[in-house]
Amino acid sequence: MKKVAIIMGSDSDLPVLEKAISTLEQFDIPLSVRVLSAHRTPVEAAAFAKSARGENYGAIIAAAGKAAHLAGAIAAGTTLPVIGIPIKSSALDGIDALLSTVQMPTGMPVATVAIDGAVNAALLAIQILAVEDAGLASRLEDYRQKASQTVLEKDRKLSLQYSRSAEGNL
Amino acid sequence: MKKVAIIMGSDSDLPVLEKAISTLEQFDIPLSVRVLSAHRTPVEAAAFAKSARGENYGAIIAAAGKAAHLAGAIAAGTTLPVIGIPIKSSALDGIDALLSTVQMPTGMPVATVAIDGAVNAALLAIQILAVEDAGLASRLEDYRQKASQTVLEKDRKLSLQYSRSAEGNL
Amino acid sequence: MKKVAIIMGSDSDLPVLEKAISTLEQFDIPLSVRVLSAHRTPVEAAAFAKSARGENYGAIIAAAGKAAHLAGAIAAGTTLPVIGIPIKSSALDGIDALLSTVQMPTGMPVATVAIDGAVNAALLAIQILAVEDAGLASRLEDYRQKASQTVLEKDRKLSLQYSRSAEGNL
Amino acid sequence: MKKVAIIMGSDSDLPVLEKAISTLEQFDIPLSVRVLSAHRTPVEAAAFAKSARGENYGAIIAAAGKAAHLAGAIAAGTTLPVIGIPIKSSALDGIDALLSTVQMPTGMPVATVAIDGAVNAALLAIQILAVEDAGLASRLEDYRQKASQTVLEKDRKLSLQYSRSAEGNL
Amino acid sequence: MKKVAIIMGSDSDLPVLEKAISTLEQFDIPLSVRVLSAHRTPVEAAAFAKSARGENYGAIIAAAGKAAHLAGAIAAGTTLPVIGIPIKSSALDGIDALLSTVQMPTGMPVATVAIDGAVNAALLAIQILAVEDAGLASRLEDYRQKASQTVLEKDRKLSLQYSRSAEGNL
Amino acid sequence: MKKVAIIMGSDSDLPVLEKAISTLEQFDIPLSVRVLSAHRTPVEAAAFAKSARGENYGAIIAAAGKAAHLAGAIAAGTTLPVIGIPIKSSALDGIDALLSTVQMPTGMPVATVAIDGAVNAALLAIQILAVEDAGLASRLEDYRQKASQTVLEKDRKLSLQYSRSAEGNL
Amino acid sequence: MKKVAIIMGSDSDLPVLEKAISTLEQFDIPLSVRVLSAHRTPVEAAAFAKSARGENYGAIIAAAGKAAHLAGAIAAGTTLPVIGIPIKSSALDGIDALLSTVQMPTGMPVATVAIDGAVNAALLAIQILAVEDAGLASRLEDYRQKASQTVLEKDRKLSLQYSRSAEGNL
Amino acid sequence: MKKVAIIMGSDSDLPVLEKAISTLEQFDIPLSVRVLSAHRTPVEAAAFAKSARGENYGAIIAAAGKAAHLAGAIAAGTTLPVIGIPIKSSALDGIDALLSTVQMPTGMPVATVAIDGAVNAALLAIQILAVEDAGLASRLEDYRQKASQTVLEKDRKLSLQYSRSAEGNL
Repeated sequence: MKKVAIIMGSDSDLPVLEKAISTLEQFDIPLSVRVLSAHRTPVEAAAFAKSARGENYGAIIAAAGKAAHLAGAIAAGTTLPVIGIPIKSSALDGIDALLSTVQMPTGMPVATVAIDGAVNAALLAIQILAVEDAGLASRLEDYRQKASQTVLEKDRKLSLQYSRSAEGNL
Repeated sequence: MKKVAIIMGSDSDLPVLEKAISTLEQFDIPLSVRVLSAHRTPVEAAAFAKSARGENYGAIIAAAGKAAHLAGAIAAGTTLPVIGIPIKSSALDGIDALLSTVQMPTGMPVATVAIDGAVNAALLAIQILAVEDAGLASRLEDYRQKASQTVLEKDRKLSLQYSRSAEGNL
Repeated sequence: MKKVAIIMGSDSDLPVLEKAISTLEQFDIPLSVRVLSAHRTPVEAAAFAKSARGENYGAIIAAAGKAAHLAGAIAAGTTLPVIGIPIKSSALDGIDALLSTVQMPTGMPVATVAIDGAVNAALLAIQILAVEDAGLASRLEDYRQKASQTVLEKDRKLSLQYSRSAEGNL
Repeated sequence: MKKVAIIMGSDSDLPVLEKAISTLEQFDIPLSVRVLSAHRTPVEAAAFAKSARGENYGAIIAAAGKAAHLAGAIAAGTTLPVIGIPIKSSALDGIDALLSTVQMPTGMPVATVAIDGAVNAALLAIQILAVEDAGLASRLEDYRQKASQTVLEKDRKLSLQYSRSAEGNL
Repeated sequence: MKKVAIIMGSDSDLPVLEKAISTLEQFDIPLSVRVLSAHRTPVEAAAFAKSARGENYGAIIAAAGKAAHLAGAIAAGTTLPVIGIPIKSSALDGIDALLSTVQMPTGMPVATVAIDGAVNAALLAIQILAVEDAGLASRLEDYRQKASQTVLEKDRKLSLQYSRSAEGNL
Repeated sequence: MKKVAIIMGSDSDLPVLEKAISTLEQFDIPLSVRVLSAHRTPVEAAAFAKSARGENYGAIIAAAGKAAHLAGAIAAGTTLPVIGIPIKSSALDGIDALLSTVQMPTGMPVATVAIDGAVNAALLAIQILAVEDAGLASRLEDYRQKASQTVLEKDRKLSLQYSRSAEGNL
Repeated sequence: MKKVAIIMGSDSDLPVLEKAISTLEQFDIPLSVRVLSAHRTPVEAAAFAKSARGENYGAIIAAAGKAAHLAGAIAAGTTLPVIGIPIKSSALDGIDALLSTVQMPTGMPVATVAIDGAVNAALLAIQILAVEDAGLASRLEDYRQKASQTVLEKDRKLSLQYSRSAEGNL
Repeated sequence: MKKVAIIMGSDSDLPVLEKAISTLEQFDIPLSVRVLSAHRTPVEAAAFAKSARGENYGAIIAAAGKAAHLAGAIAAGTTLPVIGIPIKSSALDGIDALLSTVQMPTGMPVATVAIDGAVNAALLAIQILAVEDAGLASRLEDYRQKASQTVLEKDRKLSLQYSRSAEGNL
């Protein structure tokens, strides 16, 4: 199976990315985790991007904050789909990272998810791998169903609780 | 080969999306173009999403403006990768569409590209199809090389022009 | 009397919505509380919207955060008035939810209140029910008068306190 | 039948509001159109609000730009539902009017629609009148169906055009 | 001497306004403190504005948060200078209050100060009273000089500390 | 009578400021118009501020765009009330000028009006002069009344036109 | 003398940058003009940065729009000062380019100027070269004086014009 | 060697600036630290700027919050490069300080770094001094290499940890 890479610009982003890692593990996706900086280790970042397809990666998740160039820099070096996670940092609530990640120039797409959206980045990577993998697609379907069930159970519980309280008021 | 669907919330978005269509055509990707509204035709939109994998789609591009729910609504009905294009409309420069498209809740990713980023949406779809298609990947590589060549030629021309003008000033 | 539904996209929104619930209870409005997600339980959400008028609802309050599609999704399935509450979440202060709720496309209004404006959502629902209900309108009038009285008492107390302190300074 | 009032802070807002007027006329809603300013004619604005319920209004639409206080000022004087339309003006794209209209303090809701969202304001007013009026509700249903039909026809036309062009390319 | 009124939309704004009160007291400006709401007590707010000039006020400070209409509503009822303080509240960092206060329509100025800028509102009121009061102007001059002295002393202390530390490093 | 100064950072701001000039002329306020830049002519700007009270000015209007420092720089040199007009320039819609003008540090107020709010700046200056000038206050009252009359006439005309058209539809 | 490089991400930015070029030419600064893209020609961009100090550059100006990574990418490859110009593009008024350029992570500064601030970028480069070049510093001083003179002349003209018109009104 | 000045508008900014100080000390750059306010001590601020080149400064770092005029005011008085640090304060996350610092008018550049970007401001000053100082440039190169090494070590550690955990899962 194709692998997924999770790259972060700084290891301070790891707490956010752990949810991406555990989501990928939940689907048994082979993965590697890297710290690569568009600015401090540009050569290594470019080398990784260049070799990623040959090393059997199917998608790359790149996370960075502030003037977040990492996803774009990786995207410049590969034609694999690159998924960008804008990281919220101390100022500006992550809007700087969101715009730096999503507003890519023509020719170089980054598939951007929500600010700190690590689970969704992982799910998007899995969806990409599942395009040609019916088994994985079916597991995504199951995952969705469980999420639906959770909502439906909360709905039953909460709607019951309030309808009882309503009767109690009578 | 897997197909790509291009869905717009309103046919007034067609001028923006024509660039996505021509990019896909340039790569000989089979495609269909639909007008489906999350709000005005929710049943048809959901039906399309539900059947998309079975009908051999590999990725879905959804474009909408303002409180842009279309990409999210499609994403809710399929586990295929859904690519969202926020459309700039008359007020707020498209920031409303961007936030409505990218800030998706956990469990339901939308791969968001730049405001009006139709070419990039198409390229991202092709990158997704190319994960398991070495030939398509190689054509993406060529496309990139041509884009690089264009920049390099402009660089040669412009740098020459200004170095001559500099000499002329001596 | 017509009922009011309070729908939330996630039960994590309940602390905000409890103020809407207690406001409706204060006016003895029959209500039901639901957890329904535009993305995780779209079928149930659509079904609720479709049947709401027949089940004697007069207004629907829908609350969601981030790319808040819930109110719009409900609005797409009913011609009852739908009141949207944008929920503040961890990033972006709720401006994403506000724009996703209020910037609805032509044909599909959502009556949007302030970020986390649960009490006002409830009052707006009661105002809608009171259009044809003079008794309820009169209770709204009383509620307003009490709110005015509270302000006026605070005004008396505070203005007195500072005028005394002013005299004390002489 | 209850009437709907359309109030604007300045007659320069009329071009935007004409769409609200024609939408209400399309549904044969009795309406009146007023120019009343929260700041230049506060007494008249308050008097209108105070008497509106007695004069058989069922909803009030108020539109203003910049620091848009009109809807809030009307809401302060009546317990009828007040619908606010933020008007886009020369600077700030209408975000000032949006925030001034929607971020109302607790106790005083304004049902806010999109920037320049005149048609939706009218539809929301009609939805409010239709809560207790099955005939009007049924006409809203028809209106929706027609909007759906329009989308579906455009969908047929556009999807056909592109599938033909695709065949033509073969 | 002319008086200054400090009006707040809610007594929850008092902690911010206490700095305005103490600044005015420091200059021995006669003042009154009021709680008046543009929405909950519009009649009393309008009455206050109408009578303010006759009751010997020279400037009015009005503070409110969110869709802050108070300063504008007071301004509509008097030709005295009205100073608006946008109050920061739980969402949106006070940008809603700032825009609602400063973006007033033509004909009805509000002299707006910074978000939570209570001291500056008081100083501006004193500056207005000092236009025709040389003694008060002279006290403002002294206040400024003291503020300058404080900065200059901090400058001496800090620049000395770091030049010593620099020598210590030799 | 005290004079009013109108200062602009660049003569390209003159078209906006002409409305301030004509408003002041309408009230027969003696005025002077200056081009002074906080950055290009800081000495002259400071000298003007320093001498303004002695030269019989009662208020100073300062207008600038982008990182608009002019009003603050003038305020630093005088204890006269300084009114700031943020000027809209080519990028950012004037929000940069607004924040640069209004968010002044403690101790140094600038009475900020709306973006491009030249008429209101002039009216605020006149209100300041009118605090101790009953005749001028009375002229401001008249000006207001005329503005009210204009609104009321437009109201009569527009409400009549639409009620006639309504009858015509019967 | 050290040279200055002007790099643009796309030759569509040339109209903005021509003002930087002419400003540098006005000061007889040797310069080269390049089209280099952080994403389309990353290898060439990195090579340029790497060799810039050796090729006698003293400062590099880099301009890009949208998710503007160019200045940061150049900064990653050199320890020369890099000046970033955020370019305004069709959506978002250039705020995306501004944040992508200025919010650089620790360790990798970009000296950012205003949106489309090409003249200032050139002046900043000249200021950097002038740190050790008294002759150039003196020419910068002259340039400033001329700018001051221009303002002072406009001031004389405009203040005279309005004082005459004031007398004419007497 | 040329000196670097660090100027802050208020000593409350010192905690942010200590990182700039320690970075400069790490490179043995002679420095002085000043508290100078554009508004409270404009004369001293202007005097400092005027004499800075003569006193052997090579770059000036100026930090301020809110309507941050300090860097611009210093820039107006010297042709040395001025580096602006926008300081985050209680409201608006520092976006006010960023725009007030970076959006300088033509003719008066401020080299702006990220909000609270004190280390980068120091590094930029050192880069400026290093243009003509090969030894200093070489130390900057070393500093960069160490930063790269730190990232590469974290990369080795983290990628190893996750590849082991992956094997452990087998």
